Amino acid sequence: MIEKIVKMSRSQSPARPQPIMLAIAGDSASGKTTLARGLTDAIGQDRCLSLCADDYHRYDRAERAGLPFTALHPDCNYLDILEQHLQLLALGRPVLKPVYDHATGTFSRSVYVEPREFVVVEGLHPLQTKLMRACFDATVFLDPPQEVRHGWKVARDTGERGYTADQVLAELALREQESAAYTRSQRRHADIVVRFAPAGHHDEPPGTPLSAEVLLRPTIQHADLTATLTDDLRAAMHLRIVRDVDGTPTDCLHVHGYSSAEETTQLEQVIWGAVGAVGPPPAGLGAITGGDRSEPLAIAQLVLLFHLLQVSRGEAHEPLGQVVGV
Amino acid sequence: MIEKIVKMSRSQSPARPQPIMLAIAGDSASGKTTLARGLTDAIGQDRCLSLCADDYHRYDRAERAGLPFTALHPDCNYLDILEQHLQLLALGRPVLKPVYDHATGTFSRSVYVEPREFVVVEGLHPLQTKLMRACFDATVFLDPPQEVRHGWKVARDTGERGYTADQVLAELALREQESAAYTRSQRRHADIVVRFAPAGHHDEPPGTPLSAEVLLRPTIQHADLTATLTDDLRAAMHLRIVRDVDGTPTDCLHVHGYSSAEETTQLEQVIWGAVGAVGPPPAGLGAITGGDRSEPLAIAQLVLLFHLLQVSRGEAHEPLGQVVGV
Repeated sequence: MIEKIVKMSRSQSPARPQPIMLAIAGDSASGKTTLARGLTDAIGQDRCLSLCADDYHRYDRAERAGLPFTALHPDCNYLDILEQHLQLLALGRPVLKPVYDHATGTFSRSVYVEPREFVVVEGLHPLQTKLMRACFDATVFLDPPQEVRHGWKVARDTGERGYTADQVLAELALREQESAAYTRSQRRHADIVVRFAPAGHHDEPPGTPLSAEVLLRPTIQHADLTATLTDDLRAAMHLRIVRDVDGTPTDCLHVHGYSSAEETTQLEQVIWGAVGAVGPPPAGLGAITGGDRSEPLAIAQLVLLFHLLQVSRGEAHEPLGQVVGV
Repeated sequence: MIEKIVKMSRSQSPARPQPIMLAIAGDSASGKTTLARGLTDAIGQDRCLSLCADDYHRYDRAERAGLPFTALHPDCNYLDILEQHLQLLALGRPVLKPVYDHATGTFSRSVYVEPREFVVVEGLHPLQTKLMRACFDATVFLDPPQEVRHGWKVARDTGERGYTADQVLAELALREQESAAYTRSQRRHADIVVRFAPAGHHDEPPGTPLSAEVLLRPTIQHADLTATLTDDLRAAMHLRIVRDVDGTPTDCLHVHGYSSAEETTQLEQVIWGAVGAVGPPPAGLGAITGGDRSEPLAIAQLVLLFHLLQVSRGEAHEPLGQVVGV
């Protein structure tokens, strides 16, 4: 019987192309959507499916108000269904995805989604289990300093989600313990950790853009940036080996917020050229809220694109496999 | 990688009990819900999950109004997702099931459902693919005469779904071709075909309840009714070998609508006793719309219960298997 089913399953569904999958995990308002949007725009919506794991909330906003935990708690989410859907997508299968509407705090009609060549999944929990992580070709954790993230969260939730600043601050305090226990704890499972932060130099003039620090951990094969980072780019960006907070060795790419536009533009063209692309880098890279542009964000996105497109050229992509007990 | 994933999948999810699954297929208003409800009530909601495959509609009522096909058309339903969810349930896994609201003709929030010891799936399409059918321990098709079904549909859709009689009749005419092509075509794949119909005798007084004719095809191992059907029950019910409409041989159980209450009650007690149950048969068996009771329906339900409970005693249940490319 088992053999018969497996055979039928295969004969009815000939080998499907398995997508290249990227996870972007991070706390609320850590910049996940902004990072993901630039990647999706650059690759093209026709080639890249973008998903938000917030859709897998178990409770709507009104229900959550009466609960002893916040949306960050695993029990507040259908993580088993998220895990199931990630596997199905990694196997090239469609899923009927729930939809959580942040504007109203309620669920609306589920949508049928099929994987495309690339799938970008952003959310609070995509690295929570071993099986989830195995579905991705690369995993990213966004790790801004808490004060930066709090500022972003107040701006977004008052602007787009109908909360007052006091409500947002109260929610942040309420979430702190669960943020540390369930969201920030995923940092150690990411292949790439991205941190946008003030450089912290004494001589930094006010209004200097945030710098980007990108940890490239040896858990996956990264794009070889050493050939790309030539001496004349060192003013804008450098790559060196450091110890992470837990003492483990990792590559760390630093992109200075105070670099000149000439320097960053040159760097972007070099990375984009290394991808094998012709023409200028996509205009949407680095786009942040309000129509502004962050060069360090654009460069972080280019590094991720470099990685994804390198994987798509076939050498580094290891499919999940055809047979799995989802 | 494949081995690693399969191993992880197993270690994170130790062998789950796999439910006994029954499909009840049939056209709109063929009596699926009525048949399923009696079974679920008899087994108990805590042991039996009941699902309606209408929830897998692709379009809501307003969208369907503009389409060149009706809800019966495979393209009007997410049959690939239904197939996926049937496999997951058969493997003992939860699914996030869409919800279609017949009262409003729109979709509401999806619900998380886990299989119980028994899963009853009723709908227009549960026998549409080989893989769907392999998920079930037994498959039933409801096959009332068209004039009986049309009467039921008018009564229900005007009473519960807010249509006028003329709208229902127009819809039936519109659906006729697709009903034959996509719904009634599933009849040949069912292990059991149930037909409630007037006996058609010339001497039948008006108001005689519908008789039941139950084809028990040799595609699965059925409960042995020959020992149950003793000579003194023959007035209410008989079992004989017949040729189906396509010429294939099958057992046919006939339950007369004009049997006396004494005869049918005795028969019900005998079948219920053969299940190994103590006490009288569940009171909800045979319940039809408006609080009335149909003895032939009760007996058809008892035959199905007999089958399901026999399977659950372990001899006939063949699990779907642990590993499948869902």
